[in-house]
Amino acid sequence: MKAQEETVDALDLDVLMFVNGKFCKDPKLANADDFFFSGLQIARSTQNPLGSTVTAVNVDQIAGLNTLGISLARIDFARNGLNPPHTHPRATEILLVLEGTLYVGFVTSNADNNRLFTKVLNKGDVFVFPIGLIHFQLNVGEGNAVAQAALSSQNPGVITIANAVFGSDPPINPEVLAKAFQVDNKAVEYLQKQFWYDNNN
Amino acid sequence: MKAQEETVDALDLDVLMFVNGKFCKDPKLANADDFFFSGLQIARSTQNPLGSTVTAVNVDQIAGLNTLGISLARIDFARNGLNPPHTHPRATEILLVLEGTLYVGFVTSNADNNRLFTKVLNKGDVFVFPIGLIHFQLNVGEGNAVAQAALSSQNPGVITIANAVFGSDPPINPEVLAKAFQVDNKAVEYLQKQFWYDNNN
Amino acid sequence: MKAQEETVDALDLDVLMFVNGKFCKDPKLANADDFFFSGLQIARSTQNPLGSTVTAVNVDQIAGLNTLGISLARIDFARNGLNPPHTHPRATEILLVLEGTLYVGFVTSNADNNRLFTKVLNKGDVFVFPIGLIHFQLNVGEGNAVAQAALSSQNPGVITIANAVFGSDPPINPEVLAKAFQVDNKAVEYLQKQFWYDNNN
Amino acid sequence: MKAQEETVDALDLDVLMFVNGKFCKDPKLANADDFFFSGLQIARSTQNPLGSTVTAVNVDQIAGLNTLGISLARIDFARNGLNPPHTHPRATEILLVLEGTLYVGFVTSNADNNRLFTKVLNKGDVFVFPIGLIHFQLNVGEGNAVAQAALSSQNPGVITIANAVFGSDPPINPEVLAKAFQVDNKAVEYLQKQFWYDNNN
Amino acid sequence: MKAQEETVDALDLDVLMFVNGKFCKDPKLANADDFFFSGLQIARSTQNPLGSTVTAVNVDQIAGLNTLGISLARIDFARNGLNPPHTHPRATEILLVLEGTLYVGFVTSNADNNRLFTKVLNKGDVFVFPIGLIHFQLNVGEGNAVAQAALSSQNPGVITIANAVFGSDPPINPEVLAKAFQVDNKAVEYLQKQFWYDNNN
Amino acid sequence: MKAQEETVDALDLDVLMFVNGKFCKDPKLANADDFFFSGLQIARSTQNPLGSTVTAVNVDQIAGLNTLGISLARIDFARNGLNPPHTHPRATEILLVLEGTLYVGFVTSNADNNRLFTKVLNKGDVFVFPIGLIHFQLNVGEGNAVAQAALSSQNPGVITIANAVFGSDPPINPEVLAKAFQVDNKAVEYLQKQFWYDNNN
Repeated sequence: MKAQEETVDALDLDVLMFVNGKFCKDPKLANADDFFFSGLQIARSTQNPLGSTVTAVNVDQIAGLNTLGISLARIDFARNGLNPPHTHPRATEILLVLEGTLYVGFVTSNADNNRLFTKVLNKGDVFVFPIGLIHFQLNVGEGNAVAQAALSSQNPGVITIANAVFGSDPPINPEVLAKAFQVDNKAVEYLQKQFWYDNNN
Repeated sequence: MKAQEETVDALDLDVLMFVNGKFCKDPKLANADDFFFSGLQIARSTQNPLGSTVTAVNVDQIAGLNTLGISLARIDFARNGLNPPHTHPRATEILLVLEGTLYVGFVTSNADNNRLFTKVLNKGDVFVFPIGLIHFQLNVGEGNAVAQAALSSQNPGVITIANAVFGSDPPINPEVLAKAFQVDNKAVEYLQKQFWYDNNN
Repeated sequence: MKAQEETVDALDLDVLMFVNGKFCKDPKLANADDFFFSGLQIARSTQNPLGSTVTAVNVDQIAGLNTLGISLARIDFARNGLNPPHTHPRATEILLVLEGTLYVGFVTSNADNNRLFTKVLNKGDVFVFPIGLIHFQLNVGEGNAVAQAALSSQNPGVITIANAVFGSDPPINPEVLAKAFQVDNKAVEYLQKQFWYDNNN
Repeated sequence: MKAQEETVDALDLDVLMFVNGKFCKDPKLANADDFFFSGLQIARSTQNPLGSTVTAVNVDQIAGLNTLGISLARIDFARNGLNPPHTHPRATEILLVLEGTLYVGFVTSNADNNRLFTKVLNKGDVFVFPIGLIHFQLNVGEGNAVAQAALSSQNPGVITIANAVFGSDPPINPEVLAKAFQVDNKAVEYLQKQFWYDNNN
Repeated sequence: MKAQEETVDALDLDVLMFVNGKFCKDPKLANADDFFFSGLQIARSTQNPLGSTVTAVNVDQIAGLNTLGISLARIDFARNGLNPPHTHPRATEILLVLEGTLYVGFVTSNADNNRLFTKVLNKGDVFVFPIGLIHFQLNVGEGNAVAQAALSSQNPGVITIANAVFGSDPPINPEVLAKAFQVDNKAVEYLQKQFWYDNNN
Repeated sequence: MKAQEETVDALDLDVLMFVNGKFCKDPKLANADDFFFSGLQIARSTQNPLGSTVTAVNVDQIAGLNTLGISLARIDFARNGLNPPHTHPRATEILLVLEGTLYVGFVTSNADNNRLFTKVLNKGDVFVFPIGLIHFQLNVGEGNAVAQAALSSQNPGVITIANAVFGSDPPINPEVLAKAFQVDNKAVEYLQKQFWYDNNN
């Protein structure tokens, strides 16, 4: 019985809150705080190798979002700060620039010849990054920049391409990466020894 | 053949752009502008009976959003401005206060005894309005307020309760509303003669 | 461990019965009674302020409906009885008149100018109320009426507009409702003191 | 251009009416008749080999049902009438007996050992037939019977097992059926020559 | 508390692993083995009445498949072996012939007049069996045959028509089957006494 | 009218074949060939920089797959051949080794610390690559290898990471890639001048 109880303990019960629109948890226990988050006005430090920081507000921060298919993120950029090429495996992103100037883009799939769609966005501009496509944002303005993103999942996931490719734990066999990226094994091993900062935290 | 062609002409072909992830329109014709919108930084006039104005950015503004399940809206509030009780029949909303102070709330369904969940939100606060529930936002601060909303549909729909109930075209039989709202027919007819401003436009 | 166990106790295990088509509960424990309900032929009393009574048959009555996306309701109407304006946040309704004559309608969303679509339905007539739209049924015949509704969710939810707006617990700030419904605070407070009967029970 | 136009002509434009909640057809052309059907009170003749007749009310009868995920059917039974074993490939069915007495059942899948779940249903009784499972209804009462079914799709489909197996066009290779049903080829060929009445029409 | 704990024990915790893309089980406990299966190269014995054996690789074999909407099956055929008419209530199947020659087919629904679509498939040929339709595969080659199937569900289900109809537990009322299949009760009872081999095991 | 007709001409009418389970194209025009593909037994040439070739069988090859949520691919590997790191934005993949020995892996998302899950697969082994995650297959055997993949979409999409990052059209701003991959601009520009072979064709 002990092992079983521990497994039950390990379940994230919040995730069970709504299933198919029916409360699993006694709905009388839900209250306004289950639908609330505060602090998204706060500029986070961008003192890091990428010069950008993502602040996610998803089902981990707001339990009431479960099954509702939406979440938010704030992105702070230092001058020249980059939110590096990444994907969201379970969400489309729609991004609004609150301050500054961003160069943004996404790349279409192989069948569409990996076309790059880009825009320079200023305050009030909006851009869409369709589900699963590699995309990035670079601060190309004179000062800091801030963007507000919405994502079509309560748990969109983030895969930073460089981190997943060169910073996985354990590392990918260098032969794979050398052939894939047309560099030699030494270059791969050099890259795999670097510190790959995750700006989502 | 003529009538048929006209019906085909009336089709909104943008809506056909992605179906099940496959382009219906030749994808070579898509470009970055299909994923872009500008102007959401602009405060809209709130000189109207409600003192609030909603600026939607959905599939009607950004064709590339089609099938992607997300959209945005900016809401401007004058002092005491109200985004009146309404529902989105096809979306959950997650709202972020950009400026000012809002009193917000939603009401749960009959089976949960129509409980009211409310919060006073300040800059940077976030609140979730689950799909289909009646909700509102009132500016309770000293100045204007601005909120940024994201919705879990490319075409969420808005139903302002008062407008749908008392301002429908043609009007609902007053007997229905008198009994439903426990007032007399004269009161209903008075209300049905009022102008019901739509702050979504 | 205690708190955790209590949370587990609070889970509605029926809801876990099917998830993605796989039984969570040992399927050997399921039997025909999990798919059965009786008593929908019984006319319920309509001696109430609305003159109508809704008898729901959803996942709360038939555990085997879980995840299957459908449910039923019987609606009894006294003479002049009203099923007042309401929405189902998670379902489309298709209604069949079994006895009597109903005046029914729904109101489209703001973008469609809150158009009212109505019909007078007699025995054997069918009408559709699309998901999330405000709709009502009024008995306009000489005697009682009975309708049989089907809904596209195992747990469709019901939000009676008047009850959610004027009868929420706690009440909505009267300033919100006064401005939304173009009446004075006193009128709102009067309405909020009324008893708002729920005909779904 | 001619061939293309003909293909466009062949499109069922009703089906395009709602896609992802956005009207493809100009919504101003929709009206209450698109959501209405009449005649379900009429007992259909059951003078046929099965002694039963199904009257479907789905997206073919009510264009406004498209994408809304629900439909109805009335089933008339003569004495001893049978709605023979069949499946709905895209819908769960919930059935309500309006008149008479039915013996109903469904069979679970192989992994659940093809268990048969049955009930005798009287007026007002409800039973659920989960999506894709083989099910049937037999009138075991003294007189006619009438059932009202709701299905979780606007286009549920019907596959009458005997008709699909022995009455397909062209016939299935008799060797397949002889081995599958443990009878000889002659028996199969005899069955394939029979007339397989379809009570859905 | 005891009964409750036992109910929790009875839950299949694997099924809870991913819900809406969020791990329910602590993801740190997942590893490569949760996404792995071995042995599909092995020809299974086809010494059985049907001369065919299905080897399923679904969420029961690979826990990591849960919620991911796909699974596999290998089908071995003796000479003249048959995978008899069956349906998958929750999946479309796409089949690839690895060895031998198969005569395959499916039957469309009643509304399409139960048309039979067939092909003779050789090594490297692919055929699709749409969700819920009755289909079969017969080895018509000179030797054994092997097919590899993929299904659009992690738990597709299998309903062998003959087994569900004539081999259910308990048996279906013979009157139902006699009328449905246009044979006499004795023939039905004879068939119901046969052993109905399930080649999915 | 001319421009409109041309747009209609450009529509891929196959994609309209099934929408929500209802045929858009006259179903009488469908036949067995719409569900059939041949040639997957043929080893394709792997004389290319990656030493691997993917042969997709999806809705572009089999029109009848539309909306059915599944497709196939054959992957041929030369000795040391690599199917380089890539994602499928709309599908989970389940892979079966038909010949040879593959070293395969996927990397989890940032929140799971980009953990690498790998296996060495031999004939008959199966591995799952969850939707949207970066994954790869390397032939580590002594001879050629062949794998058969199934994907949970009729149009899964492929994004080869190196091609999308370094081979997009037009190229991504080198500053973005230099910062993201911790190399200098010259290295990026060198990589962007390389030929990025697409093994999906």
